[in-house]
Amino acid sequence: MKLFPILLIVLTITGSLIAYDLPPIKELPFEALPTKPLSPKDNPTTKVKIELGKQLYFDPRLSIDGTVSCNSCHHVFGSGTDNRALSIGVRAQKGGRSSPTVFNAAFYSVQFWDGRANTLEDQAKGPLTNPIEMGMPDHASVVNRLMTIPGYVESFDQVFGKAQLNIDNVAKAIAAFERTLITPSPFDQFLQGNRNALNDSQKKGLATILEVGCTSCHNGLLMNGPEMPIGEAAWQKFPTFTDSEYVQKYDLLKDKGRADATKNEEDAHFYRVPTWRNISLTAPYFHNGSVKSLEEAVRVMAKVQLNKTITDEQVQSIVAFLGSLTGELPKMTLPKLPPTSGTSLVGND
Amino acid sequence: MKLFPILLIVLTITGSLIAYDLPPIKELPFEALPTKPLSPKDNPTTKVKIELGKQLYFDPRLSIDGTVSCNSCHHVFGSGTDNRALSIGVRAQKGGRSSPTVFNAAFYSVQFWDGRANTLEDQAKGPLTNPIEMGMPDHASVVNRLMTIPGYVESFDQVFGKAQLNIDNVAKAIAAFERTLITPSPFDQFLQGNRNALNDSQKKGLATILEVGCTSCHNGLLMNGPEMPIGEAAWQKFPTFTDSEYVQKYDLLKDKGRADATKNEEDAHFYRVPTWRNISLTAPYFHNGSVKSLEEAVRVMAKVQLNKTITDEQVQSIVAFLGSLTGELPKMTLPKLPPTSGTSLVGND
Repeated sequence: MKLFPILLIVLTITGSLIAYDLPPIKELPFEALPTKPLSPKDNPTTKVKIELGKQLYFDPRLSIDGTVSCNSCHHVFGSGTDNRALSIGVRAQKGGRSSPTVFNAAFYSVQFWDGRANTLEDQAKGPLTNPIEMGMPDHASVVNRLMTIPGYVESFDQVFGKAQLNIDNVAKAIAAFERTLITPSPFDQFLQGNRNALNDSQKKGLATILEVGCTSCHNGLLMNGPEMPIGEAAWQKFPTFTDSEYVQKYDLLKDKGRADATKNEEDAHFYRVPTWRNISLTAPYFHNGSVKSLEEAVRVMAKVQLNKTITDEQVQSIVAFLGSLTGELPKMTLPKLPPTSGTSLVGND
Repeated sequence: MKLFPILLIVLTITGSLIAYDLPPIKELPFEALPTKPLSPKDNPTTKVKIELGKQLYFDPRLSIDGTVSCNSCHHVFGSGTDNRALSIGVRAQKGGRSSPTVFNAAFYSVQFWDGRANTLEDQAKGPLTNPIEMGMPDHASVVNRLMTIPGYVESFDQVFGKAQLNIDNVAKAIAAFERTLITPSPFDQFLQGNRNALNDSQKKGLATILEVGCTSCHNGLLMNGPEMPIGEAAWQKFPTFTDSEYVQKYDLLKDKGRADATKNEEDAHFYRVPTWRNISLTAPYFHNGSVKSLEEAVRVMAKVQLNKTITDEQVQSIVAFLGSLTGELPKMTLPKLPPTSGTSLVGND
């Protein structure tokens, strides 16, 4: 009789340990995050280039009225996103898609939800002249404005050589800074062999994602599919199963996805698979930010991608695992933006 | 004959040295900036409080739609202002006055252009619920939102004690951070006895401001008048001489100034004298940001406050001196904002 409570305690403690079965770490379909991404051959990362890129990244003078910087929609202090359904650009205009996190974006082989840019360098040029984002009339206007800021002229001289302040180098500097925004997480420690880096409910969640089949798309380094050459991606259709009530509820078919970029109807509703890294931080979810909680996002994904109705326990378990992908940015100092003495460059309208 | 060019060179080099006459440093009507401002008795500065205040200062979740933080209008990376004529708040709404710099604001005895707050603590509460600034419906909504962010609850517990997350403590933490935003300048080194801290044209400019009479209002620690008890200020009427063409050109009489705050017509067009510190960085100028360049601001001030038409040489000279008041913020690390796991708090409208 006295054995009963002890047995119960033992079962309670060990219960969750035996409730799932994990393959050996090296058989998991994931890769640990390297501490640094490779730089492209034509844009080697240097310390001065990173510093210049950091200034540009935080400088709202890159927008027409001086109210929006890269950091406005891709908060380095927070999640690398703005945590809004749709981002807000100059003059309170709303964008068409939810801003993806800049954290670890260096490891993507294509950029944007629809992959319309191949590299960070290509990506950085887009929002500057998008009329509903930073609203500059053209790239020449961006360059001309930067040329009136003596500190930038000096830094571009130093980083790229004399008279090299042009839009390609603006983008290169920003990209070099973005390559420092890498967030190693507890799951990376786990992948490197530290089994204690995940707690028990996270381990259970790991078993759940393998069992449910999330890893058919969410695998690899960013949990967004196998490594691909730059410009290619493991495109996935979303939603795949369109007869779910979620499709209408969250308006998942309105956006044509990659077809917007390629103008090819065959690409309709295809997207780059988004990373799982820091997903606990990046609510709301999906390309249109229509889903407010991670729990609901997990439930919807199981249904519209795998045609599975998963239990609340499975949802909780997956969400717990995803928490192990929240990482830490390296510490960095605040940038100091180069001034224009006695005058202002931004709109007074 | 051979002496002539040498004499010319000597005159050129020394010319400006003998073109002005400066009193001994200790007789100048200015004070060097202390490295730290005093904290009020009920808000002692501590390291953890500064860190919490820094997070709050940079957190756009303090605004209704998550687009505006304190730093949006008072850029710590730049001039402590937004360098706009009028600031832009949530939903692209424009404020009524140009945002004053947060740098060294800790030394003001009243806050805002019209002095409607006495302390940094009082000031910090205003923009949060101003419908055209951060747009929160009331202070309770600010506190309720912060209470849903576990990291903030924990930090407030640590800094202020259990269950002390209230609006007064939000303001106290922000104020504690702002008290670190002190920018010692070359002119402070000069006041401390280093005569080489100013270059020759800056010294000439110093003589010019004394001669023109700018220092009748612009004196003391912030160059905004004598030291006063908290809540009091050396209010000045602006413009004083209203028959100048500048008054209409820059619409200087539209704003009632301090009368807006006191509802007393006798205070019409009175303002707190703005600091000269970092004025080279804070274009455009005046309460309405109507003057784009520092040169023009100096010219207008001489005319509408002292009824003097000063020469271009005097203007250049004064602008050169004002450049010696550009200071350096202490280096600081980027804040990391506490997350809300799997959910977003900001408007999805």
